[in-house]
Amino acid sequence: MFRTHTNGELNINNTNEIVTLSGWVQKIRDKGFMIWVDIRDRYGITQLIFDEERTDKAVFEQAKSLGREFVIQVTGTVIERQSKNKNIPTGEIEILVTKLEILNKSETPPFTIEDDTDGGEDIRMKYRYLDIRRNPVRENLIFRHKVSMEVRNYLSKAGFIDVETPYLIKSTPEGARDFVVPSRMNQGQFYALPQSPQTFKQLLMVGGMDKYFQLVKCFRDEDLRADRQPEFTQIDCEMAFVEQEDILNTFEGLTRHLLKEINGVEVEKFPRMTYDYAMKTYGNDKPDIRFDMKFGELNEVAQHKDFNVFNQAELVLGIAVPGGNKFTRKEIDKLIKWVKRPQIGALGMVYARVNEDGSYKSSVDKFYDQEDLAKWAKVTNAKPGDLICVLSGDANKTRTQMSALRMELAEILGLRDPKVFAPLWVIDFPLLEWDEETNRFHAMHHPFTSPKPEDIELLKTAPEKVRANAYDMVLNGNEIGGGSIRIHDRATQEMMFDYLGFTKEEAQEQFGFLMNAFTYGAPPHGGLAFGLDRLVSILGGQETIRDFIAFPKNNSGRDVMIDAPANIDNEQLKELNLKLDL
Amino acid sequence: MFRTHTNGELNINNTNEIVTLSGWVQKIRDKGFMIWVDIRDRYGITQLIFDEERTDKAVFEQAKSLGREFVIQVTGTVIERQSKNKNIPTGEIEILVTKLEILNKSETPPFTIEDDTDGGEDIRMKYRYLDIRRNPVRENLIFRHKVSMEVRNYLSKAGFIDVETPYLIKSTPEGARDFVVPSRMNQGQFYALPQSPQTFKQLLMVGGMDKYFQLVKCFRDEDLRADRQPEFTQIDCEMAFVEQEDILNTFEGLTRHLLKEINGVEVEKFPRMTYDYAMKTYGNDKPDIRFDMKFGELNEVAQHKDFNVFNQAELVLGIAVPGGNKFTRKEIDKLIKWVKRPQIGALGMVYARVNEDGSYKSSVDKFYDQEDLAKWAKVTNAKPGDLICVLSGDANKTRTQMSALRMELAEILGLRDPKVFAPLWVIDFPLLEWDEETNRFHAMHHPFTSPKPEDIELLKTAPEKVRANAYDMVLNGNEIGGGSIRIHDRATQEMMFDYLGFTKEEAQEQFGFLMNAFTYGAPPHGGLAFGLDRLVSILGGQETIRDFIAFPKNNSGRDVMIDAPANIDNEQLKELNLKLDL
Repeated sequence: MFRTHTNGELNINNTNEIVTLSGWVQKIRDKGFMIWVDIRDRYGITQLIFDEERTDKAVFEQAKSLGREFVIQVTGTVIERQSKNKNIPTGEIEILVTKLEILNKSETPPFTIEDDTDGGEDIRMKYRYLDIRRNPVRENLIFRHKVSMEVRNYLSKAGFIDVETPYLIKSTPEGARDFVVPSRMNQGQFYALPQSPQTFKQLLMVGGMDKYFQLVKCFRDEDLRADRQPEFTQIDCEMAFVEQEDILNTFEGLTRHLLKEINGVEVEKFPRMTYDYAMKTYGNDKPDIRFDMKFGELNEVAQHKDFNVFNQAELVLGIAVPGGNKFTRKEIDKLIKWVKRPQIGALGMVYARVNEDGSYKSSVDKFYDQEDLAKWAKVTNAKPGDLICVLSGDANKTRTQMSALRMELAEILGLRDPKVFAPLWVIDFPLLEWDEETNRFHAMHHPFTSPKPEDIELLKTAPEKVRANAYDMVLNGNEIGGGSIRIHDRATQEMMFDYLGFTKEEAQEQFGFLMNAFTYGAPPHGGLAFGLDRLVSILGGQETIRDFIAFPKNNSGRDVMIDAPANIDNEQLKELNLKLDL
Repeated sequence: MFRTHTNGELNINNTNEIVTLSGWVQKIRDKGFMIWVDIRDRYGITQLIFDEERTDKAVFEQAKSLGREFVIQVTGTVIERQSKNKNIPTGEIEILVTKLEILNKSETPPFTIEDDTDGGEDIRMKYRYLDIRRNPVRENLIFRHKVSMEVRNYLSKAGFIDVETPYLIKSTPEGARDFVVPSRMNQGQFYALPQSPQTFKQLLMVGGMDKYFQLVKCFRDEDLRADRQPEFTQIDCEMAFVEQEDILNTFEGLTRHLLKEINGVEVEKFPRMTYDYAMKTYGNDKPDIRFDMKFGELNEVAQHKDFNVFNQAELVLGIAVPGGNKFTRKEIDKLIKWVKRPQIGALGMVYARVNEDGSYKSSVDKFYDQEDLAKWAKVTNAKPGDLICVLSGDANKTRTQMSALRMELAEILGLRDPKVFAPLWVIDFPLLEWDEETNRFHAMHHPFTSPKPEDIELLKTAPEKVRANAYDMVLNGNEIGGGSIRIHDRATQEMMFDYLGFTKEEAQEQFGFLMNAFTYGAPPHGGLAFGLDRLVSILGGQETIRDFIAFPKNNSGRDVMIDAPANIDNEQLKELNLKLDL
């Protein structure tokens, strides 16, 4: 062992002990006759002192040769410091060094290893191993480890079995694009990397495993939006002999446990809302309910006056911005400009101030009197001191615009506190959604999701109205998990593939193994998967999942540190019976 | 929830309770007026009773329609059984059923779901979801889960951090063949699936993570020998600021913990032997030391007599088979035939019986008298009642043959008790091994392994004699883990690549990122990886890793259940800029 202690553990109680420490040179203060060196490792920082009078001359000279990020091993005596640092656990002591060994030198790193300097995204990623030396990055990775361990232990104690499912599976064109892996031993054939272990976990239920979980890498070859990774980690779970209620309770329990153990936050029973309610009230299916500003539908109270914009609109939506009356005219104009940006696409925004005395002042006073505006206030639940913001137009578009405005306002008002956690369930998702591009229905969740029995009849007449036994867990405006009760009989599964435009042959070729399995006694079952990267970043109070992944890829799917992907030998291609076709 | 209890928990204390159970029909005994049905789930079996007198007629008729593997839900009263079954926890009670619902029917399965019937390897694998319903398979998977959890919790408590490393990395021609993944976004380029996270874990050490672990899938596109899988799981670990001794102690601790917690076996400090000693004494580098039969080198005592076979041999090896004198002539002839099989390749076997009275009777009495044979006995440590078996010829070949014979004898004598655990460390592996095919040295462990400092000079004069800081953990004749102290400075790493035949450019292109990292303050570090599949199967007292993998592949790398690998769409190939070249 290169040390007797770590750099985070020595304190005043260790005074006079002779210790050996190892680590990186964090900082050097050279006063000529006295040199202080901060030595750093994962556990902390300890101050070393080299003193012209007390330190051996050779060692003192050696200390003078040190540079940032040198790896050193020192032996010395713990002594009490003269000027103490109360901010760190080792701040009362320092080590009077008697022996110094340079284990490895370091070139000047491309950025300084400190909490607030990282040289920018590109440099950080290229030198990720240096970036990881910085406290915030290392702490994020340790945080992720803690969350993973809590998840595993909680589920294991609840009777779930961690079963490893295969990574080399079969490509299925349904859903996102697969990464494929050419097989050398099976010429011309390919494996695919799993987008999720969906069918395998269902087969484990058919196999009687009863409760399954796995923290598992999944892969999607999608054009990467910001903060998406081609490989990501799921907490993947499945249970047999359960109904939706059982699954909601089980994973609400897990999430409540995490919030308590990891964040020290006790959360009440999670609210539940239907997909329809969420869309109508928040304009999206993952509402951030840390703050209010529910949508009020103003059609009844704002239409049929002389204001044509509203009269012609399919939907007139208002929200009450708490304390928004304090916004200056300039600030409101900025908001109006914001909603008119092409990314949002509103044509304009109407507003009404609710004064402290209860009177109103709107941007459309010409058309609406105090009595009218009082109705707006009632519908949007606006109080004196609030600001009512109103958007109108096509119903779906207006909801989406208002949802964006609501989030922007929350940001401006500081209502998105990362230390506040507001989880909820969104339930009763539609089974199908219409895809304009392919001109057919797609499964909203996936083709194995079961329709609600009471809605099955609607499949023939109004497929878009069929609700699924599908649910999402939402935390602070992010979908952190989602799942469904699955189909467990062959006939329903066949019918579903039929609705999704599969021919009988396609369905059999791609999912025959699953439908066959359903004929040998498949139990009712359902499950859920959490996105671990996202979950960890929210629990960690941060926005970007990349900061919680040790070696992330950039938006082109590249690992700039190892420079992958890369060309491969022609030899390798030949063995795989492949030719490039550029 | 489809049940109030599982099928493994009701007993005499639950008498008169009304319960609901769900599960699979295991067995039906229909006596006409009385029907007993065993209902099964992961947790056990409970007996149901339908009785013409006490059961509702409709329910009774329904019970008559049940078949094996139907999934049912029943409600009824717990009653005491007349004929009790002491072999199962629920054996004192049965359920008088009042309500029966068939949740799913089952076709007749291709094999009966019982402990001893599986329909043969091909059928089992095709219907793996049915195979998993059988107790032995399910218990193996649950056993694996327990081992994984113990490993994770032990390492986590010891300060190791679980860090997920990427699966989409870069192909490196060194070592085994990579599976590659074409990149759509980076035309003509490929990712590779990791053969191990070796370089990443080293970079984590450069990054100051100090202690890392991960249970991680690894991939090798090798021609599959029996009981090898193209994807397999490693317990991957790395530590910084350590010497070999620290690593041996740490992972000996982990293994001892597993043996205690999982198998209830307390093991003393693991013996250690050098690679050279293991090769000389057991003929291989993963000796099974549950039994003795150490090799005795007989050259000195058996050569220079009139027996030409021995005189011309490079090596004459003997082992003492405990109690082997009881072998009949026929049994010994069978052994001789066995060593002459082409897979073993010996030209013959000389033997000497050690009689109970201490006298000898050998197959070469013409050449060796009692005094000679007494010397053989001394060298091989043979006791009265033993049999001395002797092989001779080329040294390496003879050792390999004797090693095989030793294992065969242990098998015959029942000395390979799967409930006995004999772990050890094999240390001081050679750094390099000569490869006849490529006519150059290869890294025996991998190119990142550090030579022993005291042997570095030998690199120039006798590279094959250079020992590495490399070690294997061996358990019951299997290598279950292996690792090394790594090179942590650029100069040594460059020198190593040079010895391994890399050009400067190749080394830089493939491993430049690692060598660069070494210039920014890399700490001394080392690690180890266990093969989880193998470890679990040995702890589970079984031979084949496939029995501990939920969805294994066959020897052609195929998953016969989902029928992968498979052809992919031309569309997919085109997007990847690939053409088949068959």
